[in-house]
Amino acid sequence: MVIDRGPARRHTSASYSLTIRTETANLPGTLARVLTAIGNEGGNLGQIEMIESTDDRRVREIVVMARDEAHGHAIVDHLSELEGVHLAHVIDRTFRAHEGGKIEVVGRSPIATREDLSMVYTPGVARVCMAIRDEPSTQWTYTSKQSTVAVVTDGSAVLGLGNIGPAAAQPVMEGKCVIFKTFADVNAFPICLATQDPDEIVATVERIAPVFGGINIEDIAAPQCFEIEARLRSRLDIPVMHDDQHATAIVVLAALTNALKLVGKSLDAARIVINGSGAAGIATARILLLAGAKDIVLCDRAGVVAADRADHMNPYKSDIARVTNPRGVHGTVGQAMRAADAFIGLSAPGAITIDDVAAMGRDPIVFAMANPEPEIRPEALIDIARVVGTGRSDYPNQINNSLAFPGLFRGALDTRAREINDEMKLAAAAAIADLVASDELADNYIIPSMFDRRVAPAVIDATRRAAIASGVARVDTALSS
Amino acid sequence: MVIDRGPARRHTSASYSLTIRTETANLPGTLARVLTAIGNEGGNLGQIEMIESTDDRRVREIVVMARDEAHGHAIVDHLSELEGVHLAHVIDRTFRAHEGGKIEVVGRSPIATREDLSMVYTPGVARVCMAIRDEPSTQWTYTSKQSTVAVVTDGSAVLGLGNIGPAAAQPVMEGKCVIFKTFADVNAFPICLATQDPDEIVATVERIAPVFGGINIEDIAAPQCFEIEARLRSRLDIPVMHDDQHATAIVVLAALTNALKLVGKSLDAARIVINGSGAAGIATARILLLAGAKDIVLCDRAGVVAADRADHMNPYKSDIARVTNPRGVHGTVGQAMRAADAFIGLSAPGAITIDDVAAMGRDPIVFAMANPEPEIRPEALIDIARVVGTGRSDYPNQINNSLAFPGLFRGALDTRAREINDEMKLAAAAAIADLVASDELADNYIIPSMFDRRVAPAVIDATRRAAIASGVARVDTALSS
Repeated sequence: MVIDRGPARRHTSASYSLTIRTETANLPGTLARVLTAIGNEGGNLGQIEMIESTDDRRVREIVVMARDEAHGHAIVDHLSELEGVHLAHVIDRTFRAHEGGKIEVVGRSPIATREDLSMVYTPGVARVCMAIRDEPSTQWTYTSKQSTVAVVTDGSAVLGLGNIGPAAAQPVMEGKCVIFKTFADVNAFPICLATQDPDEIVATVERIAPVFGGINIEDIAAPQCFEIEARLRSRLDIPVMHDDQHATAIVVLAALTNALKLVGKSLDAARIVINGSGAAGIATARILLLAGAKDIVLCDRAGVVAADRADHMNPYKSDIARVTNPRGVHGTVGQAMRAADAFIGLSAPGAITIDDVAAMGRDPIVFAMANPEPEIRPEALIDIARVVGTGRSDYPNQINNSLAFPGLFRGALDTRAREINDEMKLAAAAAIADLVASDELADNYIIPSMFDRRVAPAVIDATRRAAIASGVARVDTALSS
Repeated sequence: MVIDRGPARRHTSASYSLTIRTETANLPGTLARVLTAIGNEGGNLGQIEMIESTDDRRVREIVVMARDEAHGHAIVDHLSELEGVHLAHVIDRTFRAHEGGKIEVVGRSPIATREDLSMVYTPGVARVCMAIRDEPSTQWTYTSKQSTVAVVTDGSAVLGLGNIGPAAAQPVMEGKCVIFKTFADVNAFPICLATQDPDEIVATVERIAPVFGGINIEDIAAPQCFEIEARLRSRLDIPVMHDDQHATAIVVLAALTNALKLVGKSLDAARIVINGSGAAGIATARILLLAGAKDIVLCDRAGVVAADRADHMNPYKSDIARVTNPRGVHGTVGQAMRAADAFIGLSAPGAITIDDVAAMGRDPIVFAMANPEPEIRPEALIDIARVVGTGRSDYPNQINNSLAFPGLFRGALDTRAREINDEMKLAAAAAIADLVASDELADNYIIPSMFDRRVAPAVIDATRRAAIASGVARVDTALSS
């Protein structure tokens, strides 16, 4: 049997959903005709809402999930040909969700009277200013610094879209800010920089740092991201973390920990292939080494990243090559995957084949995390891989960095940590993994859902404790709160 | 009669208020003893709340306004000596109002399901990013740029506190952000810069500008503020306005317009003395000239700012000296005030005397706006000046820049204006002045309260219209909304 992975089988998605307002005569069978037409086109029905109902007329809003924009157009075209059905309007729900922007800055308590104003603004505020001037640490108490992080990008590597610049990156950064607030009550603000020069980025972030309790670097291309993060870490006394590297690495470690447990293998004996030697790939290799992995082979488009490879190298790849690939493997990613226990894809669609996976060792673990289109589709690996994870929400085992970064920064903020260090990252990974109990572990359940309400509190608690234990916390009272 | 302006007569203020929790026996007369003690110390009572009441015990929280911190301590000391009264705790309400910071960044719609997330974040967000990349103007539609301004300071001239630096300035900037949101639904975010170098400030603001629809410069010292504003205005395609200059100038113009109307004088014939040649003084002189004033004498600590004065000058003072002081006045501010129609103080406490005001022309207008302590106290001018205004909320005629800046920026954002120009500033001033009808005008009512709900809509409407009429608007549809 040929597995059809063509467009007709592709998932419909809320990200390509429409709200279609239909006006019809109030006649039996009319709605059924509309829904049948949508179904025949392959549209997936969401909510159907009655907007107006009279003796002779019905107005409804119908949510339809499509596969892509063209599919949405085809559904609308089909509906518009139905007799007795008028399409009053068609709204693209994703664009509608972005209209007006996704975040706002609000006061924590209202200003309703002069008295309120005289406390939160002049003259009262002057007393608070002077208290901070006299004792700088009180800035953490009397300002939003204690709960605020910057989400900083230069727009050079946004999602899988490439170098689209700061303005086009803003919707992603705002989305990140909403996730920060939703999952861990962190106030995050987007900083989209009109420069891609590392020196200018470092200087700019350093200068705007005073109001922030942390800096989340986002979607800055490798290898500049490494240098920028390292320089900012050394210059600022607040945590600076490149989310694409470390939050991803943390969640991969959590998922791999549980997947190996499920198949009865150990991290220190496992053969692990990572494809993608960008920000996420290198950071994942590093955290796996820290956690005890011994046999990691890192690959990229040019094949295995080896210390003696000459082409497509950079200093960061050379560094990681020195501590990975202990068996001196050479060749393609496919060659590296032979007899491997786990494949971790942080690369691009189509990077590996079914045969590559079939050649892995017993109970293959495949994390195909290219976003939004994975290295290989999970449906292609049925009965071939044992555990499959992706970055997507529409498959099981979503390995999503949102599991890590909100709680990690909240834990750092709560302890006024000077940095997010390895101890905190390992603790966060363990906390995430531990949320899936041994008897719950299953091929399709190696990692909690990002909507599992236990995730953020567990990560926050683990991160706080690790910050305090490792000596980077400035306060240790947060644990009691 | 000697007017006592000593401490004993000074106003109590919410900015020095305490919440005192008392635990007493439930005996008749106990509360009266507590309140009598507070009154005897000169404390001003606010809300009294019963927290717990049993047969033998009463717990209450009593809000007491004091004159200053020492006064608050004295009240507490007195209470603690009362028999049968236990003070469970005393909270400084101003510091309490700042705990945890005053702003937060929230999502405009919730992320409750994977479906929500797939629209506001990956994969859906990618479509919006690409739409902006393909058509950059859609950033105004699909991001928060349309409603967001930066409140930028270097902490060099914060309120009347001087150069206290970026961290200590943060409470003021957050207060500003809350005012922006409260009065005109503008999302404002504090940017407190770890530099006071004009080149670095300009470069930094330019680089973080992409997410903002406007830049509000705040509490940057003169004369650097002039250069920074001018350079940013020429380099950015969004409005850049130094609030301390222009919002103050706008509100002074509005107040002066109405005060002159009240006393039956005209702006073009009025003799106006401005004391203070910093940011606000120079900007006020400029807007009054624009509005038609002909006889302005600008003064500072060294006396009249004259083109031929040698000391304490800078290029900005020289420029303004060329277009003011038409009668070639020289000497002190007191000398300049002889026979003047209006005095506008943007300087320091004690800068003028009762005699100076007494020597002014018929129906003196005195705006004593040094903050928080005015150039001269209004109670000293009873029967001497006709109209007295201050920057304070506890006297009539509060000339507060909050009347202008929220609506001004909102009007600019609504029209996606490239700048805030003179036409918009004059329109805003006229809109504020016009809210006090001719038959309402009175010595103690020349300007609306900042809690007058008509203010922001009037300023927004006037600013939008002026932006469109003067050609700096990028859209003109906002008027219909």
